[in-house]
Amino acid sequence: MKKTKQLKHIINSQNLEFIMEAHSGLSAKIVEEAGFKGIWASGLSISAALGVRDNNEASWTQVLDVLEFMSDATSIPILLDGDTGYGNFNNARRLVKKLEQRQIAGVCIEDKLFPKTNSFINAKAQPLADIDEFCGKIKAMKDTQEDENFMVVARVEAFITGWGLKEALRRAEAYRQAGTDAVLIHSKRQDIAEIESFMKEWGGRLPVVIVPTKYYTVPTDKFQKIGVNLVIWANHNLRASIDAMTKISGQIFREESLVHVEECVATLEEVFRLQGAEELQAAEQKYLPSNESVSDERL
Amino acid sequence: MKKTKQLKHIINSQNLEFIMEAHSGLSAKIVEEAGFKGIWASGLSISAALGVRDNNEASWTQVLDVLEFMSDATSIPILLDGDTGYGNFNNARRLVKKLEQRQIAGVCIEDKLFPKTNSFINAKAQPLADIDEFCGKIKAMKDTQEDENFMVVARVEAFITGWGLKEALRRAEAYRQAGTDAVLIHSKRQDIAEIESFMKEWGGRLPVVIVPTKYYTVPTDKFQKIGVNLVIWANHNLRASIDAMTKISGQIFREESLVHVEECVATLEEVFRLQGAEELQAAEQKYLPSNESVSDERL
Amino acid sequence: MKKTKQLKHIINSQNLEFIMEAHSGLSAKIVEEAGFKGIWASGLSISAALGVRDNNEASWTQVLDVLEFMSDATSIPILLDGDTGYGNFNNARRLVKKLEQRQIAGVCIEDKLFPKTNSFINAKAQPLADIDEFCGKIKAMKDTQEDENFMVVARVEAFITGWGLKEALRRAEAYRQAGTDAVLIHSKRQDIAEIESFMKEWGGRLPVVIVPTKYYTVPTDKFQKIGVNLVIWANHNLRASIDAMTKISGQIFREESLVHVEECVATLEEVFRLQGAEELQAAEQKYLPSNESVSDERL
Amino acid sequence: MKKTKQLKHIINSQNLEFIMEAHSGLSAKIVEEAGFKGIWASGLSISAALGVRDNNEASWTQVLDVLEFMSDATSIPILLDGDTGYGNFNNARRLVKKLEQRQIAGVCIEDKLFPKTNSFINAKAQPLADIDEFCGKIKAMKDTQEDENFMVVARVEAFITGWGLKEALRRAEAYRQAGTDAVLIHSKRQDIAEIESFMKEWGGRLPVVIVPTKYYTVPTDKFQKIGVNLVIWANHNLRASIDAMTKISGQIFREESLVHVEECVATLEEVFRLQGAEELQAAEQKYLPSNESVSDERL
Repeated sequence: MKKTKQLKHIINSQNLEFIMEAHSGLSAKIVEEAGFKGIWASGLSISAALGVRDNNEASWTQVLDVLEFMSDATSIPILLDGDTGYGNFNNARRLVKKLEQRQIAGVCIEDKLFPKTNSFINAKAQPLADIDEFCGKIKAMKDTQEDENFMVVARVEAFITGWGLKEALRRAEAYRQAGTDAVLIHSKRQDIAEIESFMKEWGGRLPVVIVPTKYYTVPTDKFQKIGVNLVIWANHNLRASIDAMTKISGQIFREESLVHVEECVATLEEVFRLQGAEELQAAEQKYLPSNESVSDERL
Repeated sequence: MKKTKQLKHIINSQNLEFIMEAHSGLSAKIVEEAGFKGIWASGLSISAALGVRDNNEASWTQVLDVLEFMSDATSIPILLDGDTGYGNFNNARRLVKKLEQRQIAGVCIEDKLFPKTNSFINAKAQPLADIDEFCGKIKAMKDTQEDENFMVVARVEAFITGWGLKEALRRAEAYRQAGTDAVLIHSKRQDIAEIESFMKEWGGRLPVVIVPTKYYTVPTDKFQKIGVNLVIWANHNLRASIDAMTKISGQIFREESLVHVEECVATLEEVFRLQGAEELQAAEQKYLPSNESVSDERL
Repeated sequence: MKKTKQLKHIINSQNLEFIMEAHSGLSAKIVEEAGFKGIWASGLSISAALGVRDNNEASWTQVLDVLEFMSDATSIPILLDGDTGYGNFNNARRLVKKLEQRQIAGVCIEDKLFPKTNSFINAKAQPLADIDEFCGKIKAMKDTQEDENFMVVARVEAFITGWGLKEALRRAEAYRQAGTDAVLIHSKRQDIAEIESFMKEWGGRLPVVIVPTKYYTVPTDKFQKIGVNLVIWANHNLRASIDAMTKISGQIFREESLVHVEECVATLEEVFRLQGAEELQAAEQKYLPSNESVSDERL
Repeated sequence: MKKTKQLKHIINSQNLEFIMEAHSGLSAKIVEEAGFKGIWASGLSISAALGVRDNNEASWTQVLDVLEFMSDATSIPILLDGDTGYGNFNNARRLVKKLEQRQIAGVCIEDKLFPKTNSFINAKAQPLADIDEFCGKIKAMKDTQEDENFMVVARVEAFITGWGLKEALRRAEAYRQAGTDAVLIHSKRQDIAEIESFMKEWGGRLPVVIVPTKYYTVPTDKFQKIGVNLVIWANHNLRASIDAMTKISGQIFREESLVHVEECVATLEEVFRLQGAEELQAAEQKYLPSNESVSDERL
C-alpha cells in the first residue's frame, strides 16, 4: 500500500493509533523496526539533531534533505511537522510538491507566523496566524497535492498561546471548512483539561491528533475514551539519544578507555545490519566481476 | 586559538590525547561538553545516522552539510574521516578547500579506492590504493590548504587488508615523505600486536593515531607506553544512541504510554539548552521591537 | 504521457529525433518552449554553468539539485548525461532511484572511470572501464528502476580513447546483452567516418544515439540515412549564453551605461513570464485574504 | 586585498563605481573577466536561472549554494541581493555567518516582508517592514559579522511601494542610525526624479547605491552629478543569456542542424578555458603517477 494511503488509514482509524518521532534515516528505521505504523518527523527533533534551534534556523530544503534520507530508509508513512509551511501559501504548496516527490505521506502545519518558535518556549508572546490567511494556505496545499491521499493536518495553537476553547473551536472549524484532513489540537498543560473540553465540543467533525509531551502522565485509555484518533510520541527518540550520548561521552572521557563501554552500546554488527550491509554484499556478488586472478602476497 | 592550531597541538602533543566520535551538530556539542579537546567526524557514524551505508552512498557534499552543522555548533576542532578523499587528488584537494571554509581542522584519508567499504566488512577483498597515486593525493592536499595548520592524516590500511608489517611501514614512510602530518595505523585484530610491531619500527618519525574499536579491551596505558599520540573513540556515540533509541522505541510501542518513559530520557529543558534557546530569547529582547500595545483578549 | 514513456518513444522512434542541451531550470524551459521533445542535461554544461570543471568536481547530489529545478520547470523528458554513474554499480543504482524521484526520464552512462574527464580533453590518456564491471553497472541500474520505461543509455567511448571499430562493437554488444536500452556512440572526429563504420556493423540491434559536437558540419540527412535514431545537440545553449554574457558584460563595462543595452536583452516582462509570475498573481487572488481595510497614506 | 575590504572601498569610493549582475559561477567569472570590480548576486536573476519565481521559492540555503560556486569561481567581491534576510533578525544574522564562511563580501536587505515579491510586480500592494523591526535586523547583522569590513546595505522600498520622499528619508535615516553601511534607494520610475529628490535631502550621510533597471535611459554622468556612489547593473547577464538561448534553441529546432550555429556560439575551447581545464591538466602532471607502462593496443 502506498505510504499516503497507509497514513490516511492511520488518521481515519476507528482505533486509537500511535506514531513515533524520528529525526534521521537511522532513527526512522528504528521506529519502523519497533513496530510503529508511522513516523512523526518532528521539527524540534530535526532541528536539535542538526544542532540548531526550533526557529526555522535550518532552511526548509535542509529539512527536506533529512526527510529524503528518512523516507528512503523506511517503508511506513512519514507525517512531517511542517511548522508554518515555511512562509505563505505559496511556500506551503511548493513544500507539498517537494514532499510528494520524496514519498512523504503528509504534513502538519501550525497556525503561527514564520519564523516560528517552539510551542513550549515563551508561548504567550507568540502571535497566531490570521485565520483567513491560514485557511488560504490549507486550500492551496490541498489543491496542489497530486496524490489524493496525501494528508494535510492543521495544528491549532490557540490553547498554546493562551486563547481559550472558543478560539480553538473557531479555528478548527475554519480549517475543516478549508479542507484540512485532520486537526491537531495542542496543549502545554500537564493535564488533559483543554483537550477534553475541545473533544466534547468538536464532536468528531474530523479526526483529531494530539501530542502528549507535557501531559505524559495521562493514561492512554483516557485519550481513547474522549475520542482522540492519533497520538504522537513527539520527541522521545531524540531525548533518549541525548541522554545516552551524554552518558557515554562522559564515561569515556573520564575513564579514557572503552573497556567498560562495549556492553553499553549497540554492536558494530548491529550498526552494519541497520545500514543494510548484507544487501550490498549480495549485490556485489551479483554485479561486480569476480577477481579470481588477483595475485596474493598478503598474510 | 584557531581550530586548526588546536588540532595540530593535539596531534603533536607529548601526552596521549583522545578525540571522540560525533555524527551531527547535536552529538558534536555533546562531545565538547563532555570535555574532549577534539571531535572525530566518523564516516561510518555519519553514513549510519543518515540511514545509508559506509560505501560513499551519501555524496561528499552531503557529508559536508553535516560537517557544517557540527562545526557551527562547537568550538573544538573536528578531524574528518574523509574516506579516500572521495575520488582522485583533484576531488581531495577540492575537499580541503571546502573543509577550510567550514572551519574543519583536518582530514584523514585512507589508502583504498573510491567507493570505499568499511574496514571491518570483507576487508581482505579490498584493494589498496597505488602508493604513488596516494602520495600525489597527499601532496595535492597539502599544497591546497591555505591555513598552514590544517592537518592531513594518512590512514594506512595495510594491516586491515591482510598485508603485513613491511607493507605498512613502506606505505607510512612514503606518505610521510609526501607530506602527511600524521599516520593513522589501523588494525582489526582484537589485540594490539600489529600496532605494537609498527610502533617499534616506526620510531616516532611522525605522530601516530589509532582507532581501538576492535581491540577495546587493551588498557590505555599500553597505548601510551608504545608511543601512540592520539586515540580515536570512533563510533560510540552512534552506538549508544542506537541502543537507547531501540530501547525507548520498543518500550513506547509496547506500553503505548509515556508514563514510564519520562525519567529515562533527557528533559525538554535539556533539549532547549543544548540548542541554545536562551541566547535567542535574550537576542529577541535586544533586536525585536516590544509589543506593548498588543491588545490582549487571551485567557 | 509520463516523461519516461515520452523518452522511450523518442529513443525508439522510426524517425530521426533531436533533443537539446540545458543546464538549469531556465534553459530547460527555453528548450521546451522552442519545441523540442526532450532535454539533454549535459554534464559539461551543468559543470560549466556552476563554475567548475567537467571532472566530477560538483558532487552527484549537486547535479541532482540542478536536475530537480530542471524537471520541475518543464513537462518534457530529461535524459541525464550521468558520466560514469558517479562511482561503481552501487552509486549508479542509487542514482537511478534518485532520478526517478525527480521525474528524470533516463540516464546515459559512459564506460570510463570515476572521476571522469571530458571526452574532448586529452582523450587518448583516458582509460576505459572494464567491460564486465560496466555491464554489471548496467544490470544493477536496470534492476533498480521502478518505472519500466526509465531509460538507461550506454555510451561507448572506444573511438574517443583511440580504440577502433572492433572494440566499439564488442563493447556495444556487451552492453546490449547487459540490458541497456540504447547505445550512444561517441566520436571526436570532424567527419562521420567512425559513426558510419559502426552503424554498418551494428545493424540496428538497439537504437543508436549520437552527439555531433565535433562533426557539426555533417548534414543531418546523413544521420538519418545511416540509421541513427537520436541526435543530441549537446552544449549550444551554454555556449550561446557564454557568448551573449561576455558581450553584454563587456559592453556595459566599456559604456558604463544601459542606454544601448536594453534592446539587446530580453525584457523584464519576458523574465517574469518565464518564471510564471502570472500564475502566482492569480493564486494570490485565490489564496490570500484581501486587504481592503488597509489604510492608505501613500502617494 | 580581502573581498570584504574591496567591497568597502567600492562602496565608499569618491568616484562613481559600478558592479554587474551574475547568477552562477560561470556568469560571475565572466563579470570578473569583463573588468568589473564587483558582482551583484541578484535575487531575481538567481531565482530565474534556477527556474523559480522571485518570491523566495528557492530556499535561502539553495541561494547559498549558488553563491558558494560564484565566490569560488572569482576573486572580486560579491554583494548579495539578500531579499528581506529570509525571515526575521535571527534568520538574517544566521545568513551573515553563512555568507562570511563563503567569502561573500556583503549583503543588501530590503524593508519588505518575507516572502518577498519582486519590486517591479504589483508593487503598490506590497507592505513595508515595520521600521523598528527592520532596524533590529540591521543591528543584529552588524553585531554578528566577524570581519569588520563585511558590508550591510539597507534597501529602501518606500518609493517602490508608493510612499513618498518623507517616508524614504525617515527610513533611510533610521537604518543609518541602526548601523547600515550604505543605503540602496530603489525606484521604478523611468526617470530619476525620485532618486534626485532623495539625494538632495540626504546630503551624503552615508553612501548611496542605485539600480537603474527602469530608468536605464538616464545618462550615467547624471548619477555622478547627484552624488550617487554605486550603480548596480542588476540583471543584464541573465537577460542577455535568455535572449541568446531563446534564439539558438529556436534556430537549432528549425534547422535541425548545427551547420549555421557554430559561429554564433562560444567555442568549446572557450568553455574549457572558463572552467580552468588547463590548470587541472598541469596538476595531473604534478600529482598523478605517470602511466609509462600502460600497454597500448589502440589505433
